[in-house]
Amino acid sequence: MRFGVLGTGRVGQTLATKLVELGHEVMMGSRSRDNENAVAWAASAGDAGSNGTFADAAAFGEVLVNAVSGDGTLPALEAATADAIAGKVLIDVANPLDFSRGMPPSLTVSNEDSLAEQIQRAFPATKVVKTLNTVSAPVMVAPEIVPGEHVLFVSGDAADAKNIVVELLQSFGWPAGSIIDLGDITTARGPEMFLSLWVRLMLKQGTPIFNIGVQTG
Amino acid sequence: MRFGVLGTGRVGQTLATKLVELGHEVMMGSRSRDNENAVAWAASAGDAGSNGTFADAAAFGEVLVNAVSGDGTLPALEAATADAIAGKVLIDVANPLDFSRGMPPSLTVSNEDSLAEQIQRAFPATKVVKTLNTVSAPVMVAPEIVPGEHVLFVSGDAADAKNIVVELLQSFGWPAGSIIDLGDITTARGPEMFLSLWVRLMLKQGTPIFNIGVQTG
Repeated sequence: MRFGVLGTGRVGQTLATKLVELGHEVMMGSRSRDNENAVAWAASAGDAGSNGTFADAAAFGEVLVNAVSGDGTLPALEAATADAIAGKVLIDVANPLDFSRGMPPSLTVSNEDSLAEQIQRAFPATKVVKTLNTVSAPVMVAPEIVPGEHVLFVSGDAADAKNIVVELLQSFGWPAGSIIDLGDITTARGPEMFLSLWVRLMLKQGTPIFNIGVQTG
Repeated sequence: MRFGVLGTGRVGQTLATKLVELGHEVMMGSRSRDNENAVAWAASAGDAGSNGTFADAAAFGEVLVNAVSGDGTLPALEAATADAIAGKVLIDVANPLDFSRGMPPSLTVSNEDSLAEQIQRAFPATKVVKTLNTVSAPVMVAPEIVPGEHVLFVSGDAADAKNIVVELLQSFGWPAGSIIDLGDITTARGPEMFLSLWVRLMLKQGTPIFNIGVQTG
């Protein structure tokens, strides 16, 4: 399958590399075609990896990944253009973190709204699925590095899009039983607001290599 | 030890009953001395249980428990009086939930503030410790009804107060290793904001008898 990965940071690079390893073709998108991170990634990724603008990557991908920062997300998708992302699955893994006052960050949107909902409202023809935002990049593509049973959340309005995402997550190594479909896109508020606790746990434990499990009585 | 439990709802009744079972003396406080829930609870609790106003319960308790609703918390503590709660440990188990627009609730305070911090600012001479707000009442006092390893969070500025609370939680059945001290009172934002995800998980699973564990790689 062809993927467009928007964003050139650690998360974007990790996901793009995993997708290539799994046999997919990936174009990494950024504001400019000569973004150093994206050029270097494409050079290292072999024939299946390329890079371009946000619009290039959006046009290339059958499925898109938003791995841009929270602040950068809507501008990146506007640059990608509504037409290019219409009808496509957009996997939103971003968190709307505000580091302007240092650590720990606050959220730029929360409580009665979420970044995922902002995206879905701005691009109603795109099938937004929120997932993976509750774990760090290494865990996203190698859940087995965290021992025991632990979970991922999926939120989105389109059932067919969520099915595609769940299959992709399974190909990353997430057991079917570890993926919790919370419901429609408004349920993304929960996993996004969880970041407040996630950051405190990361600071407390001194590592981003962890995750939560849900035990039910 | 003598406890003052502020609040007569399910959480207050569950905690008050557990404290009596553990051999403590408990006064349940409410707005009026003739609150039906509190009168009934005191009648059923034997010699170790009594009820009174918020001020009565606050004066009685060596350690206090805030089990009032989020909205009712600051008014209840004002009624308890700052003098009566000064120097005491106040275990804040409340969540600032707003059900005015139905389910799921939003939070009345979040992101850059929390209910626990509001309490601590309003009553600086009281030692506020946030805990237990991330599990339902039955789980609070019987963690063994949820299988496997799962955790509680503790937030507060006063180390001596947190030590008292951790000992109390252990007497409820929480293993020492399951209690995560997140840090100062500002860290209560994480467990309070977790409620957004908690409510969605409760709706998804159809039961409030669950909890999260933290697995670290």
